[in-house]
Amino acid sequence: MQTLQDYQKRYLAYQASHPFTREPVGLYQPIDYILNLGGKRMRPVALLMAYGLYHDEIAPALPAAYAIEIFHNFTLVHDDIIDHAPLRRKQPTVHEKWNLNTGILSGDVMLVYAYEYLAQLPQIERLPNILSTFNKAAIEVCEGQQYDVNFETQSIVEIDEYLHMIELKTSVLLAAAMKIGALVAEASHEDAEHLYQFGRNIGIAFQLQDDYLDTFGDPDKFGKKVGGDIAQNKKTFLILKALEVASTTMRNRLLELMNDQTKVEEVRIAAITQTLRELNIDQLTKEKKNEYQQRAFEHLNAISVSDERKQILRDLADMLLDREV
Amino acid sequence: MQTLQDYQKRYLAYQASHPFTREPVGLYQPIDYILNLGGKRMRPVALLMAYGLYHDEIAPALPAAYAIEIFHNFTLVHDDIIDHAPLRRKQPTVHEKWNLNTGILSGDVMLVYAYEYLAQLPQIERLPNILSTFNKAAIEVCEGQQYDVNFETQSIVEIDEYLHMIELKTSVLLAAAMKIGALVAEASHEDAEHLYQFGRNIGIAFQLQDDYLDTFGDPDKFGKKVGGDIAQNKKTFLILKALEVASTTMRNRLLELMNDQTKVEEVRIAAITQTLRELNIDQLTKEKKNEYQQRAFEHLNAISVSDERKQILRDLADMLLDREV
Repeated sequence: MQTLQDYQKRYLAYQASHPFTREPVGLYQPIDYILNLGGKRMRPVALLMAYGLYHDEIAPALPAAYAIEIFHNFTLVHDDIIDHAPLRRKQPTVHEKWNLNTGILSGDVMLVYAYEYLAQLPQIERLPNILSTFNKAAIEVCEGQQYDVNFETQSIVEIDEYLHMIELKTSVLLAAAMKIGALVAEASHEDAEHLYQFGRNIGIAFQLQDDYLDTFGDPDKFGKKVGGDIAQNKKTFLILKALEVASTTMRNRLLELMNDQTKVEEVRIAAITQTLRELNIDQLTKEKKNEYQQRAFEHLNAISVSDERKQILRDLADMLLDREV
Repeated sequence: MQTLQDYQKRYLAYQASHPFTREPVGLYQPIDYILNLGGKRMRPVALLMAYGLYHDEIAPALPAAYAIEIFHNFTLVHDDIIDHAPLRRKQPTVHEKWNLNTGILSGDVMLVYAYEYLAQLPQIERLPNILSTFNKAAIEVCEGQQYDVNFETQSIVEIDEYLHMIELKTSVLLAAAMKIGALVAEASHEDAEHLYQFGRNIGIAFQLQDDYLDTFGDPDKFGKKVGGDIAQNKKTFLILKALEVASTTMRNRLLELMNDQTKVEEVRIAAITQTLRELNIDQLTKEKKNEYQQRAFEHLNAISVSDERKQILRDLADMLLDREV
């Protein structure tokens, strides 16, 4: 039985043996840089695990796993430009370390290489289906990023709009990774769809958890600074839910706190966090996350392989979804 | 017998019937905008013509033609950001009309749509070959753009480096378009390669002609301002060839003129143009262009279809390559 760490190692060994060392160096060095900044590699690992449900030897799925990781890193490079982010995993972002043009151009060629690795699959008859699954996700990720940009200047954002945005921006790629793993494995259409829905629901649950932890997380365990979303007045699930459930009085208090430029940041964060707790938002967010998690497991249960083989996907969910949230 | 205009009309009708009208509007409106700025549509038309060598009805090749045009326009959107270009076909560029983020994100999703249209082809068994032809060209276009960026700050650029750059940046896409047309038509491997080389050599000849016309062209006929390359001190074939063939005295005179910030722009342009004429650069550029044009026609001759069917590709070459240069 392979462990999650075995999958990560296999993936990383494949990536290491396919470095971007072509000329011109100015185009390819940034790709090697971003791909080696670390991370859990959850998307390629999820693809390999989906494939691994059906075959013991996962080698045939490695190019597709690499394609997904290259695509994901392409979105990071371009999103960091759009978000003016100076750091990623505590290291300078590509456009900071090099420049804007390099960020754009190295990102572009990464997207092409994602297709190049995808096209290396031996299953010609499955290629159109794999490509359209990948294209759909890639298009949706761009649409999600555009909605996220829109929300910054949009005065009213509905909860459903927000959930749709995070679905597009973060969960469809995990979903597509798992479906592609199934397609490469020549699994049934039904299993491929269940794996898609498993990934999609886990992805949304993961993002809701991220929103939760950013405000209610343990500062010692949470990787980023707790309260960052509140400091930036980001329209997260927490804030949108609060605006939805609050009485007029509470709603006005919250909006006042959000717009209060006079308070010291820590004081403002503490006051908003307190208001959210009073509105029971911590509990409501947990419930929403659990809803998606529950749905994910229903789809996992419906997949037509043994429980023993499926255990690894439960391990993946455990890695991604904190039991305490 | 179909004319070049027939091909253009068929292509434009297909494009018009497949507009980008999805949500979010902020992502898709710029795509419709750039795709409708006009132009000769030489790449999709070339693809359809290559296909048309083998079949009278070109409908099956239309999605691939659209894919090539979408890809080409994606490179325009991102290159305009990189080159800080405010105008394209006398209209505001996408990042000027909207903003940088829109330019990046709309460009990204265009690249995905290029693959989406490519994947719609019915020839599954040819799909891997079509994809790898497309990927190779797409990668080379990005590499060409990176070399072009590098050359701006590189003190010495060899003629061969320059020719390699324009090959990558502008001619491989025309080449790939024609090869893909042949692949979709299920033409022989040999014909597909000849069409690739025909497009590649025509593309390089076209770029050399563009360099020539930018300096020696008739201001009434040339679309852009004559002397623009010289004004910007662009390292074109003309300048690089001049630096190669000039005596030390002439070389120093040329470099002095290029670095002379005191002269009025028109005077500086006239003096450099005169120096280039004295060095016979106009003639040498024509000869180099003709070399590539000649090679293109050798590949055209080698294609295994009737001369009558090939006539349309001669018309294409006539449209692209001015007889007077």
